[in-house]
Amino acid sequence: MPHTEYEFASRTVNSCRRFHWIPSLQRPPCGPRTNVETYEGQHSANKASEVQKRTFGSAATHNQRNPAYSELNSDDVCYFKSILGDNGVVQDEDRIAVANVDWMGKYKGASQLLLLPKSTKEVSKILSYCNTRRLAVVPQGGNTGLVGGSVPVYDEVIVSLAGMDKIISFDNVNGILTSEAGCVLENLSTFVENEGFIMPLDLGAKGSCHIGGNISTNAGGLRFIRYGSLHGNVLGLEVVLADGTILDMLTTLRKDNTGYDLKHLFIGSEGSLGVVTKVAVLTPAKLPATNVAFLSCNDYTSCQKLLLAARRNLGEILSAFEFMDHHCIDLAIRHLEGVQNPLPASQYKFYVLIETTGSDESYDKTKLEAFLLRSMEDGLVSDGVIAQDISQASNFWRIREGISEASVKVGAVYKYDLSIPVEKLYDIVEEMRCRLGDNAEVLGYGHLGDGNLHLNILSSKYDDSILTQIEPFVYEWTSAQRGSISAEHGLGLMKAEKIHYSKSTEAVQLMASIKKLLDPNSILNPYKVLPQSVL
Amino acid sequence: MPHTEYEFASRTVNSCRRFHWIPSLQRPPCGPRTNVETYEGQHSANKASEVQKRTFGSAATHNQRNPAYSELNSDDVCYFKSILGDNGVVQDEDRIAVANVDWMGKYKGASQLLLLPKSTKEVSKILSYCNTRRLAVVPQGGNTGLVGGSVPVYDEVIVSLAGMDKIISFDNVNGILTSEAGCVLENLSTFVENEGFIMPLDLGAKGSCHIGGNISTNAGGLRFIRYGSLHGNVLGLEVVLADGTILDMLTTLRKDNTGYDLKHLFIGSEGSLGVVTKVAVLTPAKLPATNVAFLSCNDYTSCQKLLLAARRNLGEILSAFEFMDHHCIDLAIRHLEGVQNPLPASQYKFYVLIETTGSDESYDKTKLEAFLLRSMEDGLVSDGVIAQDISQASNFWRIREGISEASVKVGAVYKYDLSIPVEKLYDIVEEMRCRLGDNAEVLGYGHLGDGNLHLNILSSKYDDSILTQIEPFVYEWTSAQRGSISAEHGLGLMKAEKIHYSKSTEAVQLMASIKKLLDPNSILNPYKVLPQSVL
Repeated sequence: MPHTEYEFASRTVNSCRRFHWIPSLQRPPCGPRTNVETYEGQHSANKASEVQKRTFGSAATHNQRNPAYSELNSDDVCYFKSILGDNGVVQDEDRIAVANVDWMGKYKGASQLLLLPKSTKEVSKILSYCNTRRLAVVPQGGNTGLVGGSVPVYDEVIVSLAGMDKIISFDNVNGILTSEAGCVLENLSTFVENEGFIMPLDLGAKGSCHIGGNISTNAGGLRFIRYGSLHGNVLGLEVVLADGTILDMLTTLRKDNTGYDLKHLFIGSEGSLGVVTKVAVLTPAKLPATNVAFLSCNDYTSCQKLLLAARRNLGEILSAFEFMDHHCIDLAIRHLEGVQNPLPASQYKFYVLIETTGSDESYDKTKLEAFLLRSMEDGLVSDGVIAQDISQASNFWRIREGISEASVKVGAVYKYDLSIPVEKLYDIVEEMRCRLGDNAEVLGYGHLGDGNLHLNILSSKYDDSILTQIEPFVYEWTSAQRGSISAEHGLGLMKAEKIHYSKSTEAVQLMASIKKLLDPNSILNPYKVLPQSVL
Repeated sequence: MPHTEYEFASRTVNSCRRFHWIPSLQRPPCGPRTNVETYEGQHSANKASEVQKRTFGSAATHNQRNPAYSELNSDDVCYFKSILGDNGVVQDEDRIAVANVDWMGKYKGASQLLLLPKSTKEVSKILSYCNTRRLAVVPQGGNTGLVGGSVPVYDEVIVSLAGMDKIISFDNVNGILTSEAGCVLENLSTFVENEGFIMPLDLGAKGSCHIGGNISTNAGGLRFIRYGSLHGNVLGLEVVLADGTILDMLTTLRKDNTGYDLKHLFIGSEGSLGVVTKVAVLTPAKLPATNVAFLSCNDYTSCQKLLLAARRNLGEILSAFEFMDHHCIDLAIRHLEGVQNPLPASQYKFYVLIETTGSDESYDKTKLEAFLLRSMEDGLVSDGVIAQDISQASNFWRIREGISEASVKVGAVYKYDLSIPVEKLYDIVEEMRCRLGDNAEVLGYGHLGDGNLHLNILSSKYDDSILTQIEPFVYEWTSAQRGSISAEHGLGLMKAEKIHYSKSTEAVQLMASIKKLLDPNSILNPYKVLPQSVL
């Protein structure tokens, strides 16, 4: 499944200074994210009570199941069947097993019940009941999260939004999409592209992730540099609160300063304050000319200078600036079928993918070519190629987007997602490489234009001794730079107890007060986002 | 004061189809907003207790002073002097009088004390004391608000941020500005422009308004169509809560998903949840080529079609799309010194100002010219002119930005700031004109690209009989279109009791709960934003 969607160009891309232009390029959609079953051999089934003993990554929390939560009984199941029908209540072990584990196979819960509501009212009835009964709930979208936020920790009831996948309306004058939360991002993307617009976000998991999950986790992704945060692009939300109250904030207006803008509370709160059921998103007009270049740089300083030059010279048409070190490229070539380095051999230390999107083909072409030639003359770029057709362009993107998938194939991956001032961003990769020596492979890549590093540390299996070399060092180092220990992945279960590395005591206290206000029985996505000690 | 900064071109701009290009245009800064004293003749001084009897606009609330608040005594003044020094405690009647009234002369309080803290710690001490003593507080920035949000209603202590006007840092690689809240927007604008960046917002009041006030009111303005909402552009805030707690959220990172993004609570909550003391804002790179066209359209449908065409064809360089009806132009010409219609006579019903900002002069020129010629051929535009130099461009902007100032000169102005789906946006102007007949002059203008109409109703003096013809009709009409009764001005005192026209009962209840959580004694900006009944 993971590779079939990608066709690699039969023609080898030359490493040349002649940059080739493709008139109007549309990146083909990626396929659904590799299914969790791919990794099932790595982990034996375990019970909910074992999760706190799991040692890989920061899943090694020492929480106990909160005894304040009730345990599911047959009356509960009967009630859910009465409101959802038999098809909406899943007890089949195999189906639940898939929902109990995240896609990396790193976090695994022991829920016995998966609910599939079809409407906001059904979500409301579920939560109202769970709140009264004190049954803990984990809301689940596409389950593509990377920090254990979307799977149960113990026996929480899983409420999947997968059954709420309808597009409600599209205003093709203003580009405003209204849909249910369970719509898969890629489906929305295809839909709005047919209307001449694009989604303001794009990420590797687009084939599986839901728009509701994107919003609940404030997903960043590949278009952030151009279109910014979801806090700027989400116009309205409908959210069900823990007690079942339906909060209608589903405005489709660009501007609305009537009272507190409550929707922002639910953007990025990882389902711990409410369940997003409907969304209204502002979609930018689709511009006809897209253009992808794959470049190499000899050192990190050149990457930084190139970013600055790209901001100045490509200006309003710059739509992506992704960077990766040569370890990433080597890994992708090793593990992903058909992936090749568009530049010869791996003699370069760093690679940069630049995308431009604009409204005028010949202008964009001239501009990008001039920029790249100048960057070569200035010594910032050592080699580079511009995609000549849609297939080459998707190959370039395939390398960047495949790093995460390739990482998992090594065995164990310790993933860190950091915001660090750009000038210091690569230091942590080098320091980590020194610390770990031959024990692990360290990769650095990410959204350089946003100051967002993905630090992946790979070893054949999860190992506590490696983990203790990584943590808390990585958090302390990031905190010392006033960085963020989670740029875009969220805190989930992995980093709930680490929040103080990036947030002040007063801020965390206020978050806890808001959590208690909105979810006094703490039924929504427990053990996640906030430290247990403040709740 | 209002006109001296504007130099009108000595050369008359011809109404012609030859569009002239200016190489690199920078709009000159506007002068400080007309000072409130200009209008002092209109209103006799009144006491705080009278405010509820004032009938103009929606100031006609029937709140009583909340007896739960203490009255200021000499011990309080002594305490404030002990922390702020004599210069930080203003009791001079003339100076307080200016701070007691809004710039339109429409809302007037009776505060006896104006405090001028110089640091966050001083703000913290003030609020901590006021909270304990139950002294009500109105935080004040540039006092340029339009809904009575920035002045006392009764005898609230005024805490002005004017003394906190330092730029703290500027990251000229990533364009991140950190400053104190009392910095005047125009000063920040000048500062970052010298560094090669621009502020992501611009508004008529820039010569007086503070960045802290902009953020507290979620100001929209003229660059919204290009750079979006402050929710997307503010990276970090420092806020002092009602009890004096300093909430440090002053991150300068583009991405940070560690817990709930609390800063959004303070963006647009009009100082009712906390006092913004420091801000970090993402500033876009300043692009060298700016270009302004002033066009006329024969009907509103053509304006809409022109907007659509501009989005498609100007794409990434479109930076403003402002519209105004001919009543606005006539008014500006009548009341503002030196303002002329760049197009001959006033035979057109509608006018549109289009600005483009891009990185390439010759390209932008060709693109805008081609777009305008095509729009003329398609019959969308009946006449138009492109500014040939910086002076002409600022004259075009002077017309648009001067409408508000000219409106006030008529005598009384009932201002409404509505978000309405673009296709219905002008209907309310025409309906209002029918309702009011010869009793008042009705103007429609605003940020068409954002669906934001400014509806100004002018009469020689404030008159209850006019008000009852306007309200609640204007709110009911807007609500029926699922519009917003405040697109960008906020609710303030004027519309606090009207929130239900745009927000659901559940949402207002949650806002009230959040207010009680953050400000349990309700000392911050009382009587504003939320209806008294829910607090």
